Amino acid sequence: MWQVTEDDLAHIATGAGILGTGGGGNPYIGRLRARQAIREWGPVTVLSPDELPDNARVVCVGGIGAPTVGIEKVRDLQSFHALRAIEEYTGEQATALISNEIGGSNSVEPLIPAAMAALPVVDADGMGRAFPEFQMKTFFVYGVPCCPMAVADEKGNSVIIRDTITPHWAERLARATTIQMGCVACYAVAPMSADQVRRTAIPNSLTLARELGSAVERARDNGDDPIAAILATCPGKVLFSGKVVDIERRTTAGFARGSVTIDGLDDFADGQMVIDFQNENLIARLNGEIACIVPDLICAVATDGGEPVTTELMRYGLRVTILGFPAPALWTTPEGLAVAGPKAFGYDAEYSPLTV
Amino acid sequence: MWQVTEDDLAHIATGAGILGTGGGGNPYIGRLRARQAIREWGPVTVLSPDELPDNARVVCVGGIGAPTVGIEKVRDLQSFHALRAIEEYTGEQATALISNEIGGSNSVEPLIPAAMAALPVVDADGMGRAFPEFQMKTFFVYGVPCCPMAVADEKGNSVIIRDTITPHWAERLARATTIQMGCVACYAVAPMSADQVRRTAIPNSLTLARELGSAVERARDNGDDPIAAILATCPGKVLFSGKVVDIERRTTAGFARGSVTIDGLDDFADGQMVIDFQNENLIARLNGEIACIVPDLICAVATDGGEPVTTELMRYGLRVTILGFPAPALWTTPEGLAVAGPKAFGYDAEYSPLTV
Repeated sequence: MWQVTEDDLAHIATGAGILGTGGGGNPYIGRLRARQAIREWGPVTVLSPDELPDNARVVCVGGIGAPTVGIEKVRDLQSFHALRAIEEYTGEQATALISNEIGGSNSVEPLIPAAMAALPVVDADGMGRAFPEFQMKTFFVYGVPCCPMAVADEKGNSVIIRDTITPHWAERLARATTIQMGCVACYAVAPMSADQVRRTAIPNSLTLARELGSAVERARDNGDDPIAAILATCPGKVLFSGKVVDIERRTTAGFARGSVTIDGLDDFADGQMVIDFQNENLIARLNGEIACIVPDLICAVATDGGEPVTTELMRYGLRVTILGFPAPALWTTPEGLAVAGPKAFGYDAEYSPLTV
Repeated sequence: MWQVTEDDLAHIATGAGILGTGGGGNPYIGRLRARQAIREWGPVTVLSPDELPDNARVVCVGGIGAPTVGIEKVRDLQSFHALRAIEEYTGEQATALISNEIGGSNSVEPLIPAAMAALPVVDADGMGRAFPEFQMKTFFVYGVPCCPMAVADEKGNSVIIRDTITPHWAERLARATTIQMGCVACYAVAPMSADQVRRTAIPNSLTLARELGSAVERARDNGDDPIAAILATCPGKVLFSGKVVDIERRTTAGFARGSVTIDGLDDFADGQMVIDFQNENLIARLNGEIACIVPDLICAVATDGGEPVTTELMRYGLRVTILGFPAPALWTTPEGLAVAGPKAFGYDAEYSPLTV
C-alpha cells in the first residue's frame, strides 16, 4: 500500500511512457491531469491485488481514442462520468479502480476518478503495456466479461455498450461512439471481483512504471546512462538506435496509424528500422527482417536522456533508441496470442518471442 | 379499439407507403414480417390514445438505418430485443407500444414485439409521416426525453444511449451504432406516460393508413381512379405526374441519399420535377421552383394503380404521380419547424405551407 505523490506521478509518466510502447495517450498530459486531481480532491492510495478485500468491486477505467487527437483535445472528467454511468447501470458501487493499460496517460487515468470518489487504485492493469483496442485486455482473455461498459464524453453524452456477442464487438461499438464523441472519450467496465483481478490482471505495474521513471531520473542526476538504467530495472534489450528520417501518420477509423523509419547511427550505422504502429508500436523490422513483434514491447526513448517518445510525438530528426521487452506471460499463451498476437493485427507472421 | 387483421396489414402497408413520403423502410417487407408475427404469436389490439389507461407506460419502437440496406438485410426480432433492453435499463415494463413514424415498415414495426409480448399498440405515431432522423419526432419536440434509448441488432449486440445533451446527439450516437450493426437496427425509447402520448403524438395514424390502403384497393376493384381515392381520404393535391428519367442514389453515413428526376407527361408534359431525398423525400422542385418542402409530405405513387413507390424502389422508367399533403399541425409550429423544417435539412429556404 502506498500513496501516490506528485514525484511518483512524474516517475510513472516516464515509466508508463516507456511501457506504453508508443501509445496509451500522452504521458505528460496524463501526469498533469492526475496531479491536478490529487491537488484538488486529495491523495490516492495504491493497493496491491493481494491487499484488495475479497468482496472488492474493481472498475477498470481508461481513455479511448486516437493519441494524435488527445494531445489537442485534452480529456477532462470523462472517466468519472463513465464510472458513475456504469455504477448506475449495474447498481454496484466501485470500491477500487484499475488501469486498463500501464501505458502513457492511461496508466494514471484511474487516479482522477479515484481522487474524486475517494477510492483506491490497484497496482495492476489489464495489459502490462498498451494496446490499441478495447478487447485487448488480459481480463477479457481470461474470462472477465467486457460488457456492460460505459463510454462518456466531456459534453455530457454517455452510452452503455450493454451486451455484445464478442469482445471485439464491444471495441467496434465503443470506437464508433468515440469517433462521434470527437475521437477522445473515456470508458468504465462493469465491476470485477478481487479474485478476477488477482487471476487476470498484470500485477505490480504501477510500481514498475514508477521504478522505471525513478531509475531514469536517478541515472540522469548521476550522469549515468538512462538506457542502461531502464534495462537494469526491466529486463529487455536495445533493438536499434538512430535518427528518425520519415514518419507517416494518419488519424483514421478512430486510431493513429502509420509507420516511422529510423536510419541507424553508431553501432547500427548500416541498418534501417521501420516500425508500424496503430496507436502503439506493433512490429519493428530491421532491414526488412522482423526484430520484434506484438505482444512483445517495442519502445522508443530519446537516445540522449531516455525520455519516452510516444507515436504522436515522433518526428523527423529525433535521435531515438528502440528497446524491446518480452511480453507478460499472460499474453504469450495461445489465448493471449489469439487476442493480441501478430495475426490479431493482420500480420501474416508467427509470434517469435524476443530473446533478452 | 380494434384488432389488426391480415387484410388490415395489407391496407396499412399501402397507406403507410404513401404517408411515408418515400421512406420508413420497405412497406411490403414490413407487412410480411408483421403478418408472420401475428400468425406466430397471436393478434394485436390497437388502442386510441384516449383508450390508454392513465398509468400506461408506452414504449416507442422503430427501425433505424438505410432503406436501401433494409431491403437486402431484412430485420428480424431486433425491436423486441431493443424493447427488452430498455425495459431492463429503466426497470419499467411497457404496457403498450407506439410507432415512431407512420411510414413504410416502421408503421407496423411495433406489431412484432407487441405480438411477442402480448401488448397493445397505440393508434398514433411520432411523425404523422416519416422522417430520416431519430430526433425528428413530435414526442421530443414537445418535451418527452429522447433518452435513454436502446439500439439492438440481429446478432445479439445492444447499446443504451444513456444520456445526451441534445436529441440530435442521440441521433448521432444511434446512427454510428447502427452503421456498425450493418446499417439496419431497431431501437426502443424509455417509456412515455399516457398523458405524454396524448399531448405529443400524431393521433389516428394507423387508422388513417389503413383507410388510405383500403380506399386504394376499393378504387382498383371498382375500376375507379386510386389517386382520386387517396385524395378523397386524405386531403392533398397532385403536384406532378410523369416518368422517372434519372435516379441518383448513394448509401452514405447511414442514410440513403439522392435525387430523382421526373419528366412530365400529359397535363405536366412541359415540366420536370426533381425531388431530393434522405431516406424520405425532402423537397420537390418543379422546373427549379419549390413545389413542396418538408415538413409537408411529398409522396410518389404509381400513376397506374396508386401503389406507393418508396425511394429504395424508385427506378428509371416508372410512371409516377407525386402527391403533396399538408404536414400535421404539430410540425408547423416554430418548435416543429426548428426540428424538421427546411433548415434542419440544410436547405436555405423558408417553409411555405402547401395549399390544397
